Amino acid sequence: MLEDKVRLAPVGLGRWARVLARGAQRGDVVDLYSCFSRDEQRRTSFCEEFGITRSAGSYEELLSDPDVEGVIVTTPNDTHRDVIVQALEAGKDVYTDKPIAHTLEDANRIAAAVTDTGRVFAVGHSSRRLSGHREMKRWIDDGRIGDISLAEANFSNERGLELTPKTWRYYADKSPGGAFIQLGVHHADTLQFLLGPVARVTAHARRLYTKSEVPDAVMAICEFASGALGYIGTGWASPGVYTMNLLGTKANLRYDLDFTHWDESHQADDWSTLRSQFYGESVRQPVPLPRTDMFREQLDEFALAIRGQASVEVGAVEAVRALAVVRSVLESSKRNGEAVDVAEVIGSAVATASVS
Amino acid sequence: MLEDKVRLAPVGLGRWARVLARGAQRGDVVDLYSCFSRDEQRRTSFCEEFGITRSAGSYEELLSDPDVEGVIVTTPNDTHRDVIVQALEAGKDVYTDKPIAHTLEDANRIAAAVTDTGRVFAVGHSSRRLSGHREMKRWIDDGRIGDISLAEANFSNERGLELTPKTWRYYADKSPGGAFIQLGVHHADTLQFLLGPVARVTAHARRLYTKSEVPDAVMAICEFASGALGYIGTGWASPGVYTMNLLGTKANLRYDLDFTHWDESHQADDWSTLRSQFYGESVRQPVPLPRTDMFREQLDEFALAIRGQASVEVGAVEAVRALAVVRSVLESSKRNGEAVDVAEVIGSAVATASVS
Repeated sequence: MLEDKVRLAPVGLGRWARVLARGAQRGDVVDLYSCFSRDEQRRTSFCEEFGITRSAGSYEELLSDPDVEGVIVTTPNDTHRDVIVQALEAGKDVYTDKPIAHTLEDANRIAAAVTDTGRVFAVGHSSRRLSGHREMKRWIDDGRIGDISLAEANFSNERGLELTPKTWRYYADKSPGGAFIQLGVHHADTLQFLLGPVARVTAHARRLYTKSEVPDAVMAICEFASGALGYIGTGWASPGVYTMNLLGTKANLRYDLDFTHWDESHQADDWSTLRSQFYGESVRQPVPLPRTDMFREQLDEFALAIRGQASVEVGAVEAVRALAVVRSVLESSKRNGEAVDVAEVIGSAVATASVS
Repeated sequence: MLEDKVRLAPVGLGRWARVLARGAQRGDVVDLYSCFSRDEQRRTSFCEEFGITRSAGSYEELLSDPDVEGVIVTTPNDTHRDVIVQALEAGKDVYTDKPIAHTLEDANRIAAAVTDTGRVFAVGHSSRRLSGHREMKRWIDDGRIGDISLAEANFSNERGLELTPKTWRYYADKSPGGAFIQLGVHHADTLQFLLGPVARVTAHARRLYTKSEVPDAVMAICEFASGALGYIGTGWASPGVYTMNLLGTKANLRYDLDFTHWDESHQADDWSTLRSQFYGESVRQPVPLPRTDMFREQLDEFALAIRGQASVEVGAVEAVRALAVVRSVLESSKRNGEAVDVAEVIGSAVATASVS
């Protein structure tokens, strides 16, 4: 425990800011010191809920407070660039929720600001921290699973059926890819954490049952540089699903998490199972998992990194890679399923940024 | 029970002929009356194992036996056309294991012979008869699952790691598509049974860990005419997997079968679970399933159809549709994941056949 907790300020005080604030308060490293939203009522109720004694009347005011060491950004994806770059340039360290941004151009601008300012920057690709995924990584690294040929992941819930024009996620320009940029991006990061970089993707996105502008059914095949094939399915029109299956030459692993308990990440392990299957086994054996708390852990890590006592696991590089898969998926779908080179999509974003 | 059982003769007396013969003998409709393989030793041991009192020394001899009412074909895929057409033209009814053939040209030739001869013809797309899939169909038909956005299926096992040049499945010209034509074709049929025709596919096939000529990792995205998206994954380099998940606007269904018990289909239900998930449910409820026996049922149905007491569920039309998905998957993979129109692949096969 730090004698002097790290003073962080949530920015954008919606539902997700609350989930993260609860995560931070389960730890003993973060002091939720101040906060900001343009909406005064939101500030007041957020302060009340989390026992925060001050808030800022403007973002500039927040960033000029010398006691604020870092900000926790949960504003809409299409505002990330401005909110994050402004904070970095004001000398604040930044944690942002995933995706890093909604476009690679914005993501690259953020990455450049991180490099220029040298600030600590962390992106909330929390799902790779789930105990089941950490255990999968150990099985891959120590060879227990053998060589992986197929990796299959799904992350779906009902949000697309509930979207109204009042929420930013309803709009294609603010939340391009719908279910895939909000949910699929988690698997895009976790699969690359487990299996290395995705070289190419082939995908189809459909708007089937949502009234919003964005897809509620997306399927993507990822070709890993290693040769393995990956599948990511995301839907926004069904009860919640969070699964990942790895098929290896020595064993299979199947991870299944009850999405109902996603937000309370200290309890997620109680509602998830990792099962192994070796040759000839009819019973899939549960693999014991150490307890984790993904939201707490990532905020603790960010806070400790600010004090030089930890390093950030998911920074701009990893987050850009995850977003690049998302953008490649959308590009492939636009091209009717044509295989799209992830490096090309990253490259063309860099080219666009440098001429703009 | 028939007073006078239907006299059938297995042709091609390998491992699969035995699995089917055991299925037939669990019923009380089929009389395994004779059999044929070019290998005399195989004939002798097959007759012994199943209590068959006669066998034929040549295929012509078998087909000229007026007491043989139908044949059960389990010869290699690339021999189906000749073996089946010869039987049909000799006035025998034919059951063949899936796929109907290894090419659409061969499949069309078979379909034409079925039409010309008017014989009973059945294809062993057994998996749609699994109790879990029958129940899925009831949930779709009565609206319990709502509208389906995503359907995900996997069928994998370790066969690709075991293939040697001594088996026909080793060779690309005899078993094109490897894992996908042998395993994926089941899901290609079952998904179309459940969700209607597949309009287009996008796919990647890889040869990763097998020493054979055929792919051991294949992933395909199917676009159904209904708008739903389907995924089929097949591998030949891991412990056995057989799963299908349906994501609907009202509920999800997840079916999981232990492949270890596939061959003994009267026990498969003991090793499979269908689970439902409605909104807010943390526990996936097991759905009670009536007991089934897919191999027995399809052979009973075939035999009863010979006597005009049943109709065949999976004939040439359905089997060609399943094979067309397989061939489209291979074509898409060859074209680097480009989306391929299933109707075009069927059409070009018809065009090729009519000029050859």
